[in-house]
Amino acid sequence: MPCWIDGQPGESLPLVDRGLAYGDGLFETLAVRRGRPLLLERHLARLAEGCARLAIPGDLALIRTELLAFSAALGEGVAKLLLTRGDGLRGYAPPPSAQPRRILLGSPPPAYPPANAEQGVQLFPCRTRLAEQPRLAGLKHLNRLEQVLARAEWQDAEHAEGLMRDLAGRVIEGVFSNLFLVKDGLLLTTDLRRCGVAGVMRAEILALAKRTGISVQVRDIAHAELLAADEVFLCNSLYGIWPVRRFEGHDWPVGTLTRKLQALVRKLLDA
Amino acid sequence: MPCWIDGQPGESLPLVDRGLAYGDGLFETLAVRRGRPLLLERHLARLAEGCARLAIPGDLALIRTELLAFSAALGEGVAKLLLTRGDGLRGYAPPPSAQPRRILLGSPPPAYPPANAEQGVQLFPCRTRLAEQPRLAGLKHLNRLEQVLARAEWQDAEHAEGLMRDLAGRVIEGVFSNLFLVKDGLLLTTDLRRCGVAGVMRAEILALAKRTGISVQVRDIAHAELLAADEVFLCNSLYGIWPVRRFEGHDWPVGTLTRKLQALVRKLLDA
Repeated sequence: MPCWIDGQPGESLPLVDRGLAYGDGLFETLAVRRGRPLLLERHLARLAEGCARLAIPGDLALIRTELLAFSAALGEGVAKLLLTRGDGLRGYAPPPSAQPRRILLGSPPPAYPPANAEQGVQLFPCRTRLAEQPRLAGLKHLNRLEQVLARAEWQDAEHAEGLMRDLAGRVIEGVFSNLFLVKDGLLLTTDLRRCGVAGVMRAEILALAKRTGISVQVRDIAHAELLAADEVFLCNSLYGIWPVRRFEGHDWPVGTLTRKLQALVRKLLDA
Repeated sequence: MPCWIDGQPGESLPLVDRGLAYGDGLFETLAVRRGRPLLLERHLARLAEGCARLAIPGDLALIRTELLAFSAALGEGVAKLLLTRGDGLRGYAPPPSAQPRRILLGSPPPAYPPANAEQGVQLFPCRTRLAEQPRLAGLKHLNRLEQVLARAEWQDAEHAEGLMRDLAGRVIEGVFSNLFLVKDGLLLTTDLRRCGVAGVMRAEILALAKRTGISVQVRDIAHAELLAADEVFLCNSLYGIWPVRRFEGHDWPVGTLTRKLQALVRKLLDA
């Protein structure tokens, strides 16, 4: 599997990189099919927003070029891009001279059970809550201890994902997925202005819904609303859509809107 | 300056280290004088608590041995220890096989202006707020984007530190220091069960106060209480104690309790 640093093959990082020191950076995880990165423009758009909000002077044109070349070299699998602020020995202040570092890591296609997409998944109720931090909300930054703690809460294979709530109890997202509900024909997903990661597939589904005339709301969702939903599904840019079939003793059938969106998304991922 | 990885000289890190991927790890920054790490037991105690709460199986006895040997090699300066969960290619789940990685980085003694300790410092009012996350509060973990954002808010040399509040507006700490107040002879510092880093020097000052019969309270502190304090000071394990002389238009003289504690702490750092 290829590994590149700043466009060159490489397997190791200087110890003084601020990505290691402080999680001072961003990442993107892209599905790669037949040598092409999927949803590239959406990944780059989120990365650009992260660079703007963290004031990391990333060269997005260069990153695009490298992602295309890396994907061609990888063929099939997953390209993980990390963009760190670069080097600095000690001290939180971003050094004015720091050069952002681009890291690309290839891995094989993920091996999720086909039943996750077909019959749906069971969701684990994570006790680890998401903190409210508007300055970082939505970004796919490198400070991910909450997800590490949440994912460590279950080891069984029965639960394919876990549900994370914020400290106020609102449902927010999966550990590595975004969450959608359907209620009375309306598509709902959570507002991510306080916490959470604004997923690329979430953005794609919101755009698909708009294009196909499905009514959508993006807003806070209470725990009780999730339990009362007609359909529940998860999404991310690698697996597309997984229906949720069970959570906290509630069972859902795989709904028609879920199936419709799943077919649209599959077309995109198999393109 | 020496750099060690797992006890051996080294300057680079495997790209798949989870410290880089997720900030999945802890760190300690130790003052080293005449070849010895200061406040070693307190640093190790905090690291042990971090290992327990993050379920990182760090070998504390080995880390102690390495810190002693590294400090002897360094002589005078700062030893930064990073302990990451080890390697993992993708996925938040901590791999059961992961071997924690120990990184030691040496740097010269910090060059703070002597006036900071003598006349006191001016505090910058940071707009970046600390998120409430009880699962991580108190730990010196590698997820430090809040501090990076806060420290980037000022560039002038007039402000030696910045004050961080939580989202509810309580005062919590400096960007790289803990905060103490004196009011009517009582020593006060903030409760760090929701957010903040429980500093080693803070623990030392609390113990010193106890030993010398100074009354102490650890509790939530409102913004107005800070402004109404008789004395205000900051501390960390490298510089000891800095009196705060100015914040948001309020001026404080360097108080007698601040000077008393400063003298005790200086004895410790110059030992």
